[in-house]
Amino acid sequence: MKKRIEQLVHENIRQMQPYVPGLQPQGSGWIKLNTNELPYPPPPAVGAAISAEMERLARYPNPTSALLREELARIHGVEVGNVIIGNGSDDLLNLLARAFGGEDRITSETFPSYSLYPVVTAIAGGAIESIPFGGDFSLPLEDLLARPSDLLFLTCPNAPTGVRFPMEDLRLLAEGVEGLLVIDEAYVEFAQASALPLLQEFENVVLTRTFSKAYGLAGLRVGYAMAASPVIDVLDRIRDSYNVNRLSQAGALAALASQPVYDDYVRQIQEIRQKVHDFLVTSKWDIYPSEANFLFAEPVSAAGERGPEIASTLFEWLKERKILVRYFPKHPLTASRLRISIGSSSEMERFMEEITKWQKGA
Amino acid sequence: MKKRIEQLVHENIRQMQPYVPGLQPQGSGWIKLNTNELPYPPPPAVGAAISAEMERLARYPNPTSALLREELARIHGVEVGNVIIGNGSDDLLNLLARAFGGEDRITSETFPSYSLYPVVTAIAGGAIESIPFGGDFSLPLEDLLARPSDLLFLTCPNAPTGVRFPMEDLRLLAEGVEGLLVIDEAYVEFAQASALPLLQEFENVVLTRTFSKAYGLAGLRVGYAMAASPVIDVLDRIRDSYNVNRLSQAGALAALASQPVYDDYVRQIQEIRQKVHDFLVTSKWDIYPSEANFLFAEPVSAAGERGPEIASTLFEWLKERKILVRYFPKHPLTASRLRISIGSSSEMERFMEEITKWQKGA
Repeated sequence: MKKRIEQLVHENIRQMQPYVPGLQPQGSGWIKLNTNELPYPPPPAVGAAISAEMERLARYPNPTSALLREELARIHGVEVGNVIIGNGSDDLLNLLARAFGGEDRITSETFPSYSLYPVVTAIAGGAIESIPFGGDFSLPLEDLLARPSDLLFLTCPNAPTGVRFPMEDLRLLAEGVEGLLVIDEAYVEFAQASALPLLQEFENVVLTRTFSKAYGLAGLRVGYAMAASPVIDVLDRIRDSYNVNRLSQAGALAALASQPVYDDYVRQIQEIRQKVHDFLVTSKWDIYPSEANFLFAEPVSAAGERGPEIASTLFEWLKERKILVRYFPKHPLTASRLRISIGSSSEMERFMEEITKWQKGA
Repeated sequence: MKKRIEQLVHENIRQMQPYVPGLQPQGSGWIKLNTNELPYPPPPAVGAAISAEMERLARYPNPTSALLREELARIHGVEVGNVIIGNGSDDLLNLLARAFGGEDRITSETFPSYSLYPVVTAIAGGAIESIPFGGDFSLPLEDLLARPSDLLFLTCPNAPTGVRFPMEDLRLLAEGVEGLLVIDEAYVEFAQASALPLLQEFENVVLTRTFSKAYGLAGLRVGYAMAASPVIDVLDRIRDSYNVNRLSQAGALAALASQPVYDDYVRQIQEIRQKVHDFLVTSKWDIYPSEANFLFAEPVSAAGERGPEIASTLFEWLKERKILVRYFPKHPLTASRLRISIGSSSEMERFMEEITKWQKGA
């Protein structure tokens, strides 16, 4: 009387579409501008901290990532009970959907957005409500406030545009949303401001952060969330008890202690971003004003043409030259554009050279 | 019209009791025999592999842990599609409960057992069916086969006893269970045999393994599961897309390449286990025949007394001397016993000296 695997698995999990990570190209020589990684290696202090931890690898890690949690609380001026550490911020987005979203809940997002939000919602037994962005990716504030949400995901600075929404709009959302407002601040260190002040004002605001972008530690998997302690307590109950390993805890802590290095990295990225932005504007591309480590831009061909076919052609053209950017062909707001991560100065020089060639009809 | 946090969180999550990890003592000088860790540091090759990976920390890890997955498949003589890597085997136990257990499913365990099984079941919206062990922790085969299970967790070698159940019993279970039989082989490397042959015979058998015990990498968080590919496919859909970081993938791979070192470590642990076992038997303690890296033993006082009070008193007595073992006071099958992880030779000499003192009524 055995059951078949298809009978055993929960229906929502059987039916869902899994997340598709950005392409990791094989072989060397690639200029990788597709997953918004930092183009710089970690400072020596991070490596040293990781090395020092190696002799303790036989022992379980601190289950709450206590030192890292305390240091982040101190830096952000919140209590330890307002912070939780995750195995990347994806871990925390997943826990948020699991605790507060999915089945019997209204989970929402602005659309198009980080394609993980619908996935974690589906795993939690629900279908996400995708509220379309306005033209030019303007925040659909009225639409968001007009419908109830138990859990609303918003990326700010936004991806793929890089645009930061005005604090006043975020405040209106936090006030108006019935449930939790998750502001995914994966790119906030590259921006002019954070939504952090809203944490003091609203019990329903959750900020998620990551060491994968501005701290250049995507390979280490460390993220964190900040929120009112009742929200953090819930996430803490359902996370894996040893969700962040020893080396990740030590490396992230050392990264925080090397803050001046990262401040300098961020300044460099901002400068390069400005330079590439200006170049593309001169080349007549349409670009959103980005406060993140990428640009979302609409290419213009030698003949002055724009549109999905131009973007798609340029994507492939660059790929043939081992320059990998990101292309989202499935939505009218994105299909004519490319998302270009800001790489190192030399990588972006090379990128601009190739764009110049392409625009000359090479 | 804001909702309160308690209204927003799913009821099962609000009500569940979280997992309580084993105590990690603060300060130095402890002999830590409470969480079944290996008392040896990783071989140099593991450190070297981790160091070599550090310069790539800015890049996302391989999302499927491809090299590690391939190597484990090769070692165990299965296909790559039969293996999945987790952030510790806890990650995989959680995914198994999420996909196949919890709400609208019958999830079972033998009781008492690893206290994470009821927790992951509760997070998945169900209550675990705890099938009591027989006297002396005998496998309740008839009871297990008499009731339906969609998902049955069984630790083998068992914890806390260390006893390995006969292959024929496991085969009867695999045949008789309607759903998945998860054999948690966290301690299998210390044992005389694995249930691996059952994988070829049954589509419903899942083996979970870990690098935390015999590979001495509890601090690195790497585990894996082996099963029929339809089961692995399901788990793969719902795991975090970058669940295992670069350093963990590299370290675990290097550990596999250092297998002779670990074979030697395991032999040492088995020898020390035998020595401590013999010592305790001579001291008239009752002990299960362990095939794991711990002993589950009933202490006898100077006056020849046994029972919960004796075990509890000895636990505290050892703790005062900075020797930490594990005590499970809540169940009649466990309350008169202590679980003693096998530490290094010198740690166990010290342990035996203290036991000798205690038994002399010190």
